Amino acid sequence: MKGSFSLNDIEISTEKEDLLCYSFDASSAEAALPRAVAWPRNADQVARLLRYADENSMNVISRGAGTGMTGGSVPRGASLVLSFEKMRKILDVDTRNMTVTVEPGVINGRLQKELEYLGFFYPPDPASLAVCTIGGNVATNAGGPRAVKYGVTRDYVMGIEAVVADGTVITTGGRTHKKAVGYDLRNLLVGSEGTLAVSTRIRLKMLPLPEDVMTFLVFFNSLEASGTAVAKIISSKVIPRTIEFMDRYSIEAIENYKPVGLPTEVEALLLIELDGYPATIRKEAERVVDICHTLGGEAIVAEDSTARERLWEARRSVSPALYHLKPTKINEDIVVPRDKIPSLLVDLRRLSEESGIRIVCFGHAGDGNIHVNIMVDAHDPAEYAKGKGLVRTLFELTLRRGGSLSGEHGIGLTKAPYLGMEVKERELQLMQGIKRVFDPRGMMNPGKIFDPR
Amino acid sequence: MKGSFSLNDIEISTEKEDLLCYSFDASSAEAALPRAVAWPRNADQVARLLRYADENSMNVISRGAGTGMTGGSVPRGASLVLSFEKMRKILDVDTRNMTVTVEPGVINGRLQKELEYLGFFYPPDPASLAVCTIGGNVATNAGGPRAVKYGVTRDYVMGIEAVVADGTVITTGGRTHKKAVGYDLRNLLVGSEGTLAVSTRIRLKMLPLPEDVMTFLVFFNSLEASGTAVAKIISSKVIPRTIEFMDRYSIEAIENYKPVGLPTEVEALLLIELDGYPATIRKEAERVVDICHTLGGEAIVAEDSTARERLWEARRSVSPALYHLKPTKINEDIVVPRDKIPSLLVDLRRLSEESGIRIVCFGHAGDGNIHVNIMVDAHDPAEYAKGKGLVRTLFELTLRRGGSLSGEHGIGLTKAPYLGMEVKERELQLMQGIKRVFDPRGMMNPGKIFDPR
Repeated sequence: MKGSFSLNDIEISTEKEDLLCYSFDASSAEAALPRAVAWPRNADQVARLLRYADENSMNVISRGAGTGMTGGSVPRGASLVLSFEKMRKILDVDTRNMTVTVEPGVINGRLQKELEYLGFFYPPDPASLAVCTIGGNVATNAGGPRAVKYGVTRDYVMGIEAVVADGTVITTGGRTHKKAVGYDLRNLLVGSEGTLAVSTRIRLKMLPLPEDVMTFLVFFNSLEASGTAVAKIISSKVIPRTIEFMDRYSIEAIENYKPVGLPTEVEALLLIELDGYPATIRKEAERVVDICHTLGGEAIVAEDSTARERLWEARRSVSPALYHLKPTKINEDIVVPRDKIPSLLVDLRRLSEESGIRIVCFGHAGDGNIHVNIMVDAHDPAEYAKGKGLVRTLFELTLRRGGSLSGEHGIGLTKAPYLGMEVKERELQLMQGIKRVFDPRGMMNPGKIFDPR
Repeated sequence: MKGSFSLNDIEISTEKEDLLCYSFDASSAEAALPRAVAWPRNADQVARLLRYADENSMNVISRGAGTGMTGGSVPRGASLVLSFEKMRKILDVDTRNMTVTVEPGVINGRLQKELEYLGFFYPPDPASLAVCTIGGNVATNAGGPRAVKYGVTRDYVMGIEAVVADGTVITTGGRTHKKAVGYDLRNLLVGSEGTLAVSTRIRLKMLPLPEDVMTFLVFFNSLEASGTAVAKIISSKVIPRTIEFMDRYSIEAIENYKPVGLPTEVEALLLIELDGYPATIRKEAERVVDICHTLGGEAIVAEDSTARERLWEARRSVSPALYHLKPTKINEDIVVPRDKIPSLLVDLRRLSEESGIRIVCFGHAGDGNIHVNIMVDAHDPAEYAKGKGLVRTLFELTLRRGGSLSGEHGIGLTKAPYLGMEVKERELQLMQGIKRVFDPRGMMNPGKIFDPR
């Protein structure tokens, strides 16, 4: 690479065009240039980079594919970005122990495909799976549609090799499914958004690939009925592998952007997927369709894998499609106990109508995790301020229902000012105390999670 | 209670007969009398007891049913024991969100029964489930036979309300299945053996009760073949809910203690249980039996629930039955990647034959977690020392295979001297740093996990 120079065999650049590429993520957080970008190839290089950063009073920002929604990988202060494009190896697929070991730069979708080819299954499937990395998934404890049945990234991380601020390589977790040996440092690293350590190797659980999958859509003329259906399905003891929700605004956005023939006159739809043995699926599908019918829902089954893939493409295109509604998307990913979804959706629709600002809701209804998108134009300062003001109201409505500020995006920069709404002072002190144990100088991804103000 | 006195409405005793009852657990750790025992009724009482202990420089030992295998609840120093006999309420069963909230003194087996009655399922099932408490299960991250399919206690803990050393009540985790808000304090508390905080309320996930269960025994004339069968079953993509293993010595111990008619001439048996829909189970059972046959195993199916319960009673009686072999049981619960079981069992049999000390192996082969029992007589100092000496060899054999010192019992007092064999210096420093953040004076269950020497 032109202008890149080597610091003891490590690829590093301080060229403006490189720095620009690593100055932002998928969030609305203000971009900022790092001082340098490095592409380490192994734990030893990461360790030396951390020691170098420490000696030169620089901050260290680890970065996967930059698909984060909260500014978690946006530089702050004099920063050295570590990017994992050169650490993309799947190191070991252990079919006897059902584990897979990867470098942090491995792309989620690639891992999925390689394992499926062998008859195995890695469930976490964030919408950005075509580009996002396992390292980034671990840093944010990423979820995805299949979390309702299979859990989130945390549930699959068995062990992490990581480098802490002083340049020491540590090993957390292990090679076994059970372990009761000291404090669980592994789960502390998962979801810590690069503020405690830099992962260099990750061991994941995998599952047998389900024999079959059935996908269907259910349309509702009532927002509330669609939410009620979700709770009723789970209460009936059927756990679909996904129960995705889209409101009318989301459907309109898709049909205006990449039409797939969804009816735009319905209030909401659920995209439901069941997996397992074919006989089991049929039985469960009958139960689910019955419940939806009782609530006025109409079901359509995806006939084949092409039809199924088209539905999922539509689902994954909601987020980009929204930019055709308004140039700025203030997107939050709150989560509530699933039986609280209907009343929350109704409250948000009312908030949208009263404020005159479109609030578009879609997401993982099965686990109560709704992506709430407040659509504004950042170039219209009054509208933007009004939209921003709705965020606090949204969080109040969420917390009042026993929910949480973030289901899977993390806190990063954009939610840090709101953290105190959910986390009490004493718990914050404990978290900050832990941060100091790992990183006394505060060089690891500063300003993230904890609001510096 | 005679002699008990009240400290601001809290039931406390300093009577010798009470102190004696709380001076030991199920391990070989040396008993020690506490100064006092308290039976708090709520978080506020726990908080006041912690402040009292702090002011009076006392240690705080939380205790469930005292079934721990590593001395985790045995007092050390001037101690106040908190016992949870008065906090046994199941506070809320939320069938719509599939969660249950309990006080820490709730007995695991009682919770199982109450939920099954409602059609729900709480999988973690330690052998002591008839008496052990959820609070104790959380403190040690307890497992049990069903962990191979359903995971351990950690996988079911959604939220913990706890009191930290300064008497503040904290809330960790939440009411939702997904959450990405700050560091995961909840998983830090799970498995921390009472060294960080005292749990006062625990929210657990529950699952729908499987429609049916099939239980069968498979007998093997080769120790190695039984171990190989375990790895082959899982590789064939069938995940039974249990794959319990017993060697010949275990079978003999049961038949000499509470005979159930097991053949004592076989080298090993597997107790396998499949659950799910009846059609699925039949299909999976065929596959499992085929694999076992190929390896020389002979299968017998439990005809009804009475026969099944008899097998499980036999399995759960192994541990007490062993005391009829020798008065002292040095019991370890190492765990290895499951494909390493056959070679480990062969090595241990050789170690037993060479040393002349009987080493009895049984346990959760499906997840590589083997209970290794070194049978000696503590009144014979030479034999006891020789048995103790084998522990280090066992751990070496385990770690060499990528295993871990404890699968589900924890470190407590008895394994603390060995912790450094597995956990590296830097990780130990991080754990001890975290300990100081929560508990600067070191009053919470001192001497446990971290060896004071």
